Amino acid sequence: MTRVHNFNAGPSAIPLVALEQAQRELLEFEGTGMSILEHSHRGKAFEKVHDETLGLIKKLMAVPDTHDVLLLQGGAHAQFAMIPMNLLPAGKSADYVLTDGWSDRAFEECKNVGAARVAGKIEGYGRIPRADELSLHADAAYVHVTSNGTLSGTQWHEFPETAAPLVADMSSDILSRPVDVAKFALIYAGAQKNIGPSGITVVVIKKDAIAAGRTDIPKYFRYSTHAKERSLYNTPPTFSIYLARNVLRWLDAEGGVAAMAEKNRKKTDLLYAAIDARPDFYRAPVDKASRSRMNVVFRLPTEELDSKFCAEAEKAGMVGLKGHRSVGGVRASTYNAVPHASVEALVAFMDDFARKAG
Amino acid sequence: MTRVHNFNAGPSAIPLVALEQAQRELLEFEGTGMSILEHSHRGKAFEKVHDETLGLIKKLMAVPDTHDVLLLQGGAHAQFAMIPMNLLPAGKSADYVLTDGWSDRAFEECKNVGAARVAGKIEGYGRIPRADELSLHADAAYVHVTSNGTLSGTQWHEFPETAAPLVADMSSDILSRPVDVAKFALIYAGAQKNIGPSGITVVVIKKDAIAAGRTDIPKYFRYSTHAKERSLYNTPPTFSIYLARNVLRWLDAEGGVAAMAEKNRKKTDLLYAAIDARPDFYRAPVDKASRSRMNVVFRLPTEELDSKFCAEAEKAGMVGLKGHRSVGGVRASTYNAVPHASVEALVAFMDDFARKAG
Repeated sequence: MTRVHNFNAGPSAIPLVALEQAQRELLEFEGTGMSILEHSHRGKAFEKVHDETLGLIKKLMAVPDTHDVLLLQGGAHAQFAMIPMNLLPAGKSADYVLTDGWSDRAFEECKNVGAARVAGKIEGYGRIPRADELSLHADAAYVHVTSNGTLSGTQWHEFPETAAPLVADMSSDILSRPVDVAKFALIYAGAQKNIGPSGITVVVIKKDAIAAGRTDIPKYFRYSTHAKERSLYNTPPTFSIYLARNVLRWLDAEGGVAAMAEKNRKKTDLLYAAIDARPDFYRAPVDKASRSRMNVVFRLPTEELDSKFCAEAEKAGMVGLKGHRSVGGVRASTYNAVPHASVEALVAFMDDFARKAG
Repeated sequence: MTRVHNFNAGPSAIPLVALEQAQRELLEFEGTGMSILEHSHRGKAFEKVHDETLGLIKKLMAVPDTHDVLLLQGGAHAQFAMIPMNLLPAGKSADYVLTDGWSDRAFEECKNVGAARVAGKIEGYGRIPRADELSLHADAAYVHVTSNGTLSGTQWHEFPETAAPLVADMSSDILSRPVDVAKFALIYAGAQKNIGPSGITVVVIKKDAIAAGRTDIPKYFRYSTHAKERSLYNTPPTFSIYLARNVLRWLDAEGGVAAMAEKNRKKTDLLYAAIDARPDFYRAPVDKASRSRMNVVFRLPTEELDSKFCAEAEKAGMVGLKGHRSVGGVRASTYNAVPHASVEALVAFMDDFARKAG
């Protein structure tokens, strides 16, 4: 089999070793006579996998003792609702810094729960707002940021200083670089970009935020419910957790988040250099200082050329390059599991395509 | 590899052919150069799997055009909350018939959302209430029943006639027998018993119940949101849906729910006969008329013997027989994917164990 170069925005590339291990073990897990899919979530075999997964997240993110790690379901979208349900008391308001279409959705969902204000937004999402462009309210229940804009291709390279607790959607850059977890009241991420399978959401939450959470909401949607039961309050998505474990083992063996950050920097340096080398043909809509190390977005001179580029790239074995339906253009997602060689192949294709079309 | 006899209550046995197909295709799905886990949920390859899964559920359950099928996350527990959030308007109350520890949880969660009444309950859950024992309110927002008690080992063999819309948790017996879907406003089930992997919830809901749903709740928790987007509002648990499809294909090839009902009847007839044949040693706590065709619960003369039975059965290659931690005893879950031969092995073991211990 020839593996394609996978630039999907999520679900996305998974390290081959993680898949190979899953394939080897799929019919029988560790000599137990059944698949990991058939094991009870209350049995020893799965509990060991569950604990290892939680432990690897804690280790790789250097989660301090002040914080808990939860494995939930429903993706970032469920968190868009659960965060205000838990952390936004009546009479208070939450601050949202909008840097991406997904921040917009988080903000809109918050307004279905309680009061929310826009604390910063650059029209067109061409860059992350500067500190002096934010209007943060010290009395906000929390400040919500989107650490990496999967659609806009922007990334916070330094997080803002906030008086209110800081909450971050890290769906598209979790575990891609070192982050000081202590700065955050809550970090959340759908797993389908840097952790592997869709269907699990990682939530890293300060223990005092759990304790202060609202109790006038359904029990299932309280963080305290899941924290108390080590994310085994109800049946978890066992195979997804198992596969995430395989991916996290790989990440650990590769040197952890510091090594990933270096690799991701090199991959995206290469791509941005290829874009900037032909400013008459490729155009990056994001300011240099705000460029993402995960989702590299660019445009060609016309929409027709955008489409032709993606179609020909696909024929050449590079998939997932079409920009999100809401924004168009081209997007190369270069998550942890995307090899450097895939980016090299894309850069060679870009040079070739520009020469032929230009 | 020798497959164990798997009597787990969920996650539970999965048809071997469904696992074998997943194993064969795990690194490369249908010649696409990547795993199904790495495909975008917006791409053609996954969309085909998604549509086939929805289509198979519709076909196998004979879902009428008045109803929609949704694939959600969060298991039955998320439904315990979402049902009243969507279907219980202010000023109304919901009726809950309690026949299992899981009905209790559904009822308790409803009270976190709005008003709920117990419309029927037999102390000890030794049987399903008779029609004349129910106190149903014609003005209830809905009547909630648990079609099969995974803990209690009871099952509704005929559903009650209700003036209010009927809602059923079918987590542990969905697709195990023919059901007249038209009778129900909403049917829901976690997939980890009869459909395969944990991490997906099937919701079959009447279209007018979707339309009448409350809109003063978070958008993500509205049934209308997911119905409108064919359960692709946000990233679904793609691998779980793929594996469910494999299981549903097997179910279809085996003859569908009518064939399953017949097989399940034969398996449980065998087990109940083995229990009833030694009334001085094995005791079924459930009345004959209410006995489950999915979860066969029984007890031995002492708790010590219950434990010894489960431990020795495990040594003999029969796993998952320990009763739920909340009720104790022995429980054999005989879902669709549990072969007749596994039940025969258990029955032989029961005879042998009783003879040696008795």
